Amino acid sequence: DESAEDAERKKKNVNDPYANDPPRHPALIVRVNQPFNAETPIELIPDNYITPNDFFFVRNHLPVPSVSEKDYRLEISVEGQQEPLVTLTLQDLKTKFRKQTVTSTIQCAGNRRSDMHKVKEVQGTGWAQGAISTAEWSGPKLHDVMAYAGVDFSNPRIQHLQFEGLDKDITGVCYGASIPVYKGIEPYGDVILAYEMNGVPIPLDHGYPVRVIVPGSVGARSVKWLSRVIASSQESPSHWQQKDYKCFNASTDWKNVDFSKAKSIQEFPVQSAICDPKDGVELPEDMDEISVRGYAVSGGGREIIRVDVSIDGGKSWNEARLLPKPRSYNILGRDWAWTLWEAKVPVTDSDRAKGELSILCKAVDSSYNEQPESFQAVWNLRGLLATAWHS
Amino acid sequence: DESAEDAERKKKNVNDPYANDPPRHPALIVRVNQPFNAETPIELIPDNYITPNDFFFVRNHLPVPSVSEKDYRLEISVEGQQEPLVTLTLQDLKTKFRKQTVTSTIQCAGNRRSDMHKVKEVQGTGWAQGAISTAEWSGPKLHDVMAYAGVDFSNPRIQHLQFEGLDKDITGVCYGASIPVYKGIEPYGDVILAYEMNGVPIPLDHGYPVRVIVPGSVGARSVKWLSRVIASSQESPSHWQQKDYKCFNASTDWKNVDFSKAKSIQEFPVQSAICDPKDGVELPEDMDEISVRGYAVSGGGREIIRVDVSIDGGKSWNEARLLPKPRSYNILGRDWAWTLWEAKVPVTDSDRAKGELSILCKAVDSSYNEQPESFQAVWNLRGLLATAWHS
Ligand SMILES: [Mo]
Ligand SMILES: [Mo]
Repeated sequence: DESAEDAERKKKNVNDPYANDPPRHPALIVRVNQPFNAETPIELIPDNYITPNDFFFVRNHLPVPSVSEKDYRLEISVEGQQEPLVTLTLQDLKTKFRKQTVTSTIQCAGNRRSDMHKVKEVQGTGWAQGAISTAEWSGPKLHDVMAYAGVDFSNPRIQHLQFEGLDKDITGVCYGASIPVYKGIEPYGDVILAYEMNGVPIPLDHGYPVRVIVPGSVGARSVKWLSRVIASSQESPSHWQQKDYKCFNASTDWKNVDFSKAKSIQEFPVQSAICDPKDGVELPEDMDEISVRGYAVSGGGREIIRVDVSIDGGKSWNEARLLPKPRSYNILGRDWAWTLWEAKVPVTDSDRAKGELSILCKAVDSSYNEQPESFQAVWNLRGLLATAWHS
Repeated sequence: DESAEDAERKKKNVNDPYANDPPRHPALIVRVNQPFNAETPIELIPDNYITPNDFFFVRNHLPVPSVSEKDYRLEISVEGQQEPLVTLTLQDLKTKFRKQTVTSTIQCAGNRRSDMHKVKEVQGTGWAQGAISTAEWSGPKLHDVMAYAGVDFSNPRIQHLQFEGLDKDITGVCYGASIPVYKGIEPYGDVILAYEMNGVPIPLDHGYPVRVIVPGSVGARSVKWLSRVIASSQESPSHWQQKDYKCFNASTDWKNVDFSKAKSIQEFPVQSAICDPKDGVELPEDMDEISVRGYAVSGGGREIIRVDVSIDGGKSWNEARLLPKPRSYNILGRDWAWTLWEAKVPVTDSDRAKGELSILCKAVDSSYNEQPESFQAVWNLRGLLATAWHS
C-alpha cells in the first residue's frame, strides 16, 4: 500500500530530495533521472488517442513533493493581501464546485528539442518527439473557484494568475508559473483544477492531488502539486516564468540574451511529428505505398485542419487523413487535443532507387498557421518550440 | 453634393453596373478597375498607424450598390424561418444599442499574392503588400443586435452567422460570407456592425451605411453594405465562402482541387512586410546603418511580439523596435490591429560589396507562430495567405 511504499522510500535516504519520487513504468524513455523527465514511447501514440497514465510523458522541474490528501490545502490569494481569500481542502474542490472534464494534450515547450539541437547546440533536455501526451482531466473550473473566493476580476490590476507548486528546490523555492488573467476567466478558456486524470486520482508524477490544467498552452503553465493561486498585477516571479520558456531570434546567444525583453511562452504554435515508421526502420523493398502515421496539434484551441506528407523532400505533398477523434472535442472553436493522422503515400521507382526514404510532415491549423520549414530560422538558445517540419 | 453626383453617374450609363462606384483618391494603386480593387500606397503606412479613409485599400468583389440611409434596412433572421426576427433601420442601430469602437486592421486574404506568384503562377488579383489598412470602426456589437432580435444561441443548430451584402452580380446573386457562431458571440470577439470609420460615416467604397467588422479574420468576412444576418447550421452558400478563400497544399492544382474538402479561411496567420525602403530604391553608398520600417500583424487577436530583420539572407537577424501603438489596443489578450516597427541594421563592408542589399523581415506572434520561410512550401492555387518572409 502507498504508505508502506512511502516509508520504504524514506528509509532509503532521508536526505535524498528525490526520495518521494514514485516508481515509473520501464517503457518510458528516460531523458533525465533527477528531476525525472521521460518521454512517451512514440509507437504507442498512433493507437492511443488518450495516453494511458503509465505512459504519459513526465516533465518534472524538481523532486516530487510528499503530500497527503488529508494535509493538502489550496490557497487562493490576491497580491498585497497577507491572508489568503480562502483555503480549500481536496474535499472542498470535489464537493463545492461542478466537476468539468477537459480532454487536453499537454506538450512540453521543449518537445522535439533534439531536432533543433542537430542544427546548432541548444541548452536543455534532449527531447525527441515524445514529450507530449493527451488525457481527460477532471475537476472544477479555475474560474468557478476564483469566483467562490471572491476575486474581483473587474479590478484592472489583476492581469496574471500565478500558480505555485509544492515541489521545491534545495533552498526551499517552489516551482511557479503564471498565465494571463483572461485565459483563466474567459468562458471557453477551460482552465481547470484537475484532481482526476483519465478517471482516476492524478498519479503522483502528474501532480497529485491537484494540477492546474491550462489547455492549449505549454506544459510549464500547468503547474503540478498546486498549492497556491495568486491573482496579481505581475507574472510569476519564478525562474521558469522570468528566465526560461521564452524564445529569441537565432542571432541571440548566451552572451547577449536579455530574458526581460521577450514574452513568456503561453499558447504554443502548430506542431506535428511522424510516429510510424520509426526512424531507421527497414521497409520492404517492393512496397508501392507507405503508410505514415503521426500526431499534429496547435495551441490556443486551434484545431488541425490539414497535414501534408512528402517522401521526396517537399517536391510533392500528400494530404493525410485526419483520424476522427473519439468524441467531439471542438466545442465553440476550442480544440485542446491533438489530431492523429495517417497518410498512404505512393512509392515510385525513383523513390526506391534512393535506397532510403526521408519522410517529411507538416501541419496547418485553423488560423492557417504553418510550421516553419527549417530549424535554422527558428533556432533559439533554449531549444524551445522546436516545430519545424518533422522528418 | 452627393445626389447631384449620383444623378450624374446614372446619366452616364443606366446599364452600367458600376455606375454607382464612387470617385477614388488618385494615390490608390489600382489593381483591378471593375470591380474596384486598389492598394494603400505603402509609403504612407509607416507614418499612419490609422490609415486615412481616402487611402484605405479597397477590395470589392462586385459593383458598389446604390443605397440610401432612408431606405437602408438590416434583417436579422434564423435559418428555416420565413420572416426575419427583426428589421432594423440605420437609426435603430445608432440609437437602440451601445456604440462600440474597435481598432482593427483589415487584411485581404490575397495580400502579397504577387510575391507568391513569382514562385509559380496563382490565380487572383496581383496584390503587393498594400492590401491591408487599419481603421477605428464604430457601431453596435453584433452580439447585442442578435440578442435584441431574440436569437437563441443555446440552440446547438446555430453554428454559423451568415452575412449578405447589397452588392449583387449580374444575375442578382449577392456577395455573402459567414463566420463561426462563437466568433460572433464570445464576449471578447469584438464583432461589430460598424456605421462609422474613423469617426465619419463609412465611405461608400467601404460599405456605407453598415459593414460588419470581424476583427482578426480575413477581410472577406467583413461584409460591406450589410443587408442581412442569418443564424444558421451551415456556412454561407456563397461562391466566396464555398469555392474561394480556402488554401490547399502545393501539390493541389485546378485539375484535382476539391473545395469542399478544405476549411474556409477565418483568422489569418502571422504576416509582416517591409514598407521602407521601397524595392529598387538607391541608397547612399557610404551608409553604415540602414533604417527599415514596416508592419506586422496576426489574426485571432494575437499580438506581435517580435520582428526580425536580416540584410544577409537570414544568416544574422536584428530585432526591430516595435513602435508603441497610439492607444492600448490589447484588451484581454485581443489585439486586432497591426504593429508598426523600425529596425536600424548595421551595414558592413561585405554588405556594401554586394552592390545590392536584399532585406528580409519576419514576425512572431504571441503564440510564437512564425511566418513560413519560403513560398514554395505554402504555395496554393489561389495565392491566398501569402505570408512567407518578405524581402
Ligand atoms: Mo516544458
Ligand atoms: Mo479578400
